[in-house]
Amino acid sequence: MSLQAIHNIPEICAQLGITDAVLSPGSRCAPLTIAFARHPGVQVRTVPDERAAAFIGLGIAQAQRRAVALVCTSGTAGLNYAPAVAEAYFQQIPLVVFTADRPPEWIDQLDGQTIRQTDLYGAHAKGSFTLPVDISHPDAEWHAARIVNEAMNLAQRAPAGPVQVNVPLREPFYPKAGEELTFGPMKVIREEMSAPVLLPSQAAALRDTIRDAARVLVVAGQHPWEPALQQALHQFSIAFDVPVVGDTIANLPSAIGQQDVFLAAQNQTLRESLRPTLLITFGQSLISKALKLYLRNTPIAQHWHIQAAGEVADTYRALTQIIRVEPADFFAALTAIGNTDSIGVSEAVDSSSILGTTAMRPPFPADATRVAPPALVPISAAIETGVPSASYTAAWQRTNAQATDFLDTFFQQPNQPFNEFAAIHKALHSLPEYTVLHLANSMAVRYANIIGLPQGRAVEVFANRGTSGIDGCTSTAVGAALAQPERPVVLLTGDVAFFYDRNAFWHNYPTPNLRVVLLNNHAGGIFRLIDGPRQQPELEEFFETRQPLRAENTARDFGLRYFAVSSFAELESALPVFFAAEGGAALLEITTDSQTNAAFFEHYRNTVKAAFA
Amino acid sequence: MSLQAIHNIPEICAQLGITDAVLSPGSRCAPLTIAFARHPGVQVRTVPDERAAAFIGLGIAQAQRRAVALVCTSGTAGLNYAPAVAEAYFQQIPLVVFTADRPPEWIDQLDGQTIRQTDLYGAHAKGSFTLPVDISHPDAEWHAARIVNEAMNLAQRAPAGPVQVNVPLREPFYPKAGEELTFGPMKVIREEMSAPVLLPSQAAALRDTIRDAARVLVVAGQHPWEPALQQALHQFSIAFDVPVVGDTIANLPSAIGQQDVFLAAQNQTLRESLRPTLLITFGQSLISKALKLYLRNTPIAQHWHIQAAGEVADTYRALTQIIRVEPADFFAALTAIGNTDSIGVSEAVDSSSILGTTAMRPPFPADATRVAPPALVPISAAIETGVPSASYTAAWQRTNAQATDFLDTFFQQPNQPFNEFAAIHKALHSLPEYTVLHLANSMAVRYANIIGLPQGRAVEVFANRGTSGIDGCTSTAVGAALAQPERPVVLLTGDVAFFYDRNAFWHNYPTPNLRVVLLNNHAGGIFRLIDGPRQQPELEEFFETRQPLRAENTARDFGLRYFAVSSFAELESALPVFFAAEGGAALLEITTDSQTNAAFFEHYRNTVKAAFA
Repeated sequence: MSLQAIHNIPEICAQLGITDAVLSPGSRCAPLTIAFARHPGVQVRTVPDERAAAFIGLGIAQAQRRAVALVCTSGTAGLNYAPAVAEAYFQQIPLVVFTADRPPEWIDQLDGQTIRQTDLYGAHAKGSFTLPVDISHPDAEWHAARIVNEAMNLAQRAPAGPVQVNVPLREPFYPKAGEELTFGPMKVIREEMSAPVLLPSQAAALRDTIRDAARVLVVAGQHPWEPALQQALHQFSIAFDVPVVGDTIANLPSAIGQQDVFLAAQNQTLRESLRPTLLITFGQSLISKALKLYLRNTPIAQHWHIQAAGEVADTYRALTQIIRVEPADFFAALTAIGNTDSIGVSEAVDSSSILGTTAMRPPFPADATRVAPPALVPISAAIETGVPSASYTAAWQRTNAQATDFLDTFFQQPNQPFNEFAAIHKALHSLPEYTVLHLANSMAVRYANIIGLPQGRAVEVFANRGTSGIDGCTSTAVGAALAQPERPVVLLTGDVAFFYDRNAFWHNYPTPNLRVVLLNNHAGGIFRLIDGPRQQPELEEFFETRQPLRAENTARDFGLRYFAVSSFAELESALPVFFAAEGGAALLEITTDSQTNAAFFEHYRNTVKAAFA
Repeated sequence: MSLQAIHNIPEICAQLGITDAVLSPGSRCAPLTIAFARHPGVQVRTVPDERAAAFIGLGIAQAQRRAVALVCTSGTAGLNYAPAVAEAYFQQIPLVVFTADRPPEWIDQLDGQTIRQTDLYGAHAKGSFTLPVDISHPDAEWHAARIVNEAMNLAQRAPAGPVQVNVPLREPFYPKAGEELTFGPMKVIREEMSAPVLLPSQAAALRDTIRDAARVLVVAGQHPWEPALQQALHQFSIAFDVPVVGDTIANLPSAIGQQDVFLAAQNQTLRESLRPTLLITFGQSLISKALKLYLRNTPIAQHWHIQAAGEVADTYRALTQIIRVEPADFFAALTAIGNTDSIGVSEAVDSSSILGTTAMRPPFPADATRVAPPALVPISAAIETGVPSASYTAAWQRTNAQATDFLDTFFQQPNQPFNEFAAIHKALHSLPEYTVLHLANSMAVRYANIIGLPQGRAVEVFANRGTSGIDGCTSTAVGAALAQPERPVVLLTGDVAFFYDRNAFWHNYPTPNLRVVLLNNHAGGIFRLIDGPRQQPELEEFFETRQPLRAENTARDFGLRYFAVSSFAELESALPVFFAAEGGAALLEITTDSQTNAAFFEHYRNTVKAAFA
């Protein structure tokens, strides 16, 4: 039987923008494996643990801002993809998942590696397709190609996400000895995306509402690094005198970022001084629980969320208006129409400005937008020069500056016991320029969000906050390292997330640019930091789940250079060597004591509450 | 808010037969964790990697023949259960999966660890339930209890399988300091199962068909160890002069078992001499591809499958009749009614015999049925004494004996290179009595099925052949070791399955009775053994996926005594020490060369084909 319909799959994928595929070994998937492996336009890598493979694919897709293909065999292989598929769904990362399957007549007939693969990911895939099993008829070959094409377009259409293509295959699976596979250029259906734009009258009306609002606040959720957005936001914030707040995962280096610090106390005067009447948000989730609860529990007259497509969450229970444009276009359009112009004048504004920067952009932000950031004027500097200090913006800026000063002072206190919070502070401030920083769930990303990132180093931040799982943080970072060997990729993780996903390293592809900073407190330390579990007799066995592992054997297994530190002095001498570009992949294990960590973090919480009371 | 409805959950589980729960750490699941941990009737263990946790739960359920509860937090935790849930579904193991969830109002609102958990396992769970979120009203408390009760009954009702109970929980999660949880005896709905029985007239009619059939063959699929069935089959085989064939996973020590050997060649004379006119099957899947293909490609006039409940596969494309009784009851009833009686006499037979041995048995075979096997007369001995040697049964017996002799001779050939096939032969023949043997996918279970088990040692065999995945074989064996510390539990596995599921060992519970025999050929060696992939240029990178790991670091990480062998002499001296009861958990790494293995197995295949040509 001709397998041309299968051989067409990588060709369609390549023509529609896929450059990378992650395979896992299997027998039923052999025709897919061979087709992808031999296609000259797709780089293929094979990873045996499908759970890790899928997260590695997700990391590659995040880094390249392109869809990635996954290929696995029949049976539970595809179920091991499910955690990464769910993460991709909520993080809106396009993955095209090819699950090889037995033909339908052999389902539920007690053959090996046979489950019910139709719609395997349920509510966590954008769609589920099944290729025809008889693919030799020309109509069927066209049908199969059309399905793959539809799946590719669906995965990439905003909001991007994962799709499944189930591929039932009958034997024989293998080309004859010496048989050449044919990859011809073939007809594909390209989907040229349009950009949703605001009419000048809409922009003017929104502008007027903003101008009339007493206090306008922009809060950014998780968002990829996007210089056009950074620039547009910066100009908007100056033009309208509006503070912009974002967590580390918002990738807005100039934004106010220490909200975990200055909102730690229940200071009602401060909270009232920061309260917006009009909240404008974009992006996905927040790390900062303090900010989230503050916004949830503060009366806000209007909340606009800027999102071009897809369902919108009412995260703060205040949502009143959804505005269907890209955030960069929204802020550029509003800035172009101006703060002080009359409506009449604004309607005459050059429509190309209003159309914005993203017209005809690909649905998933393309690689070309990811360059080193422009040398932005910090918002604080702009505020100081152009805006009266009594303004609402200045209140946010001043409070943020106080928080920065507080942290600087706090971490310089002498005689601190060695602890993970202070160790992360040092590690983050040693990050190389242009680092791709992956923050693992659960405490690593929280600590980092409190501490913030060093200024001016253009650190691009990723975290699996779609589902906030610990299950694939390492694999995602490995994918990032594979996809961009020219940049340092640093993973900051805890011991439970690290050991959970050790199979991230179990493959044959070098990642010399990868640096793993492992905070090993031999437990799920978060449970000792939060009220509730730490008061329970079950704390150590059932919440912390204390575990004795050190990472040295793992490092040895996978050829990672291994650094172990358990004091500030050791840490400080290790960091420059560890982060140096040469030498290859490395693991820095920072061993701390869970009780000391808890005591120090309690000390921090008391100090910060007193400072901002 | 009262969490009494949550605290009732372990009480209901315990009253309905659950004795063990496997938890994984989390915050949202805290009320469930605390309720299970404090309930005096349930033994709880906590395992951080949910994929391993679920397979450990499956291993415990298999060993105890009782449902096991799983408890995980919200988000992708539950998705990591999916491979084990699918395996449990197809292997008909009752698991009651409690997935903690956010309350419905917070789904899709960008909160952490929040996915769409309703019906998380799709077609691979028997049912999906959701507890009410407001559980303080007495009606809601009753509703919640009723749902848990229904889920328990559904999981255990034949065919048993996994069910999901999604548990949305609002804060606060934790009891106040010093608060005692109340576990009262409460009303539960017990489901007393009845046994389906054949009427005497049905049994007589079936008996007549069997008596009139020229050649009747019984083939057993995967089935738990069940002395009543072994006894009934034995007596049936004598009474009706019928051969009984079963793979190692059929747990029938007296059955014909070397079909992988004597059906290796396409010997048409032999095949015709073994061809049944009436095939009677029970149980689940076969390992033996040779037997499966033989039965598929042989004209068979009638095929009866004996299965009390559930969908039935047409595995051999010959199925003509489904008989809805338990296999043990079927064979006992037919034997009781007798081979030579007239219908008139048979109808007078004591109906208690016809009702069989399993009347009122619990739906999932209970622990009490699992004892050391009776000293059965081997079928071959019975045949020799009572049946003319020219019979159909004798043909099967003679052929099987030839295969046994062939293997004995084959493995005694001098100057064999060290290889995994011969190493497994030695390891299997060194198994202690009453071993619980877990055979991992994919080559370990196939090798073992060719070689067969040593006679007279009452080795009970398990393999994850519901889905035939490699993803949880080690964890399943760990669960078995935890559940029956008084018996030796031996896992025979390959390197890909072993490293895939290393987190099986990542918990704090000792398994001194566990012995892991690891065949490390540094690759998915199966792909070099089968036609197709071994002819492809992609063999090493994309099929075998060669990997350099040795298990020594893993053994060190998890405190397993480590034995490494790479010659027959080393193996023979290690085996007695390794299998000795004292000393604690141990890992025997048998390192072989993938190419040598392939060459030796090819030599075996050529030799066996010649011997049975």
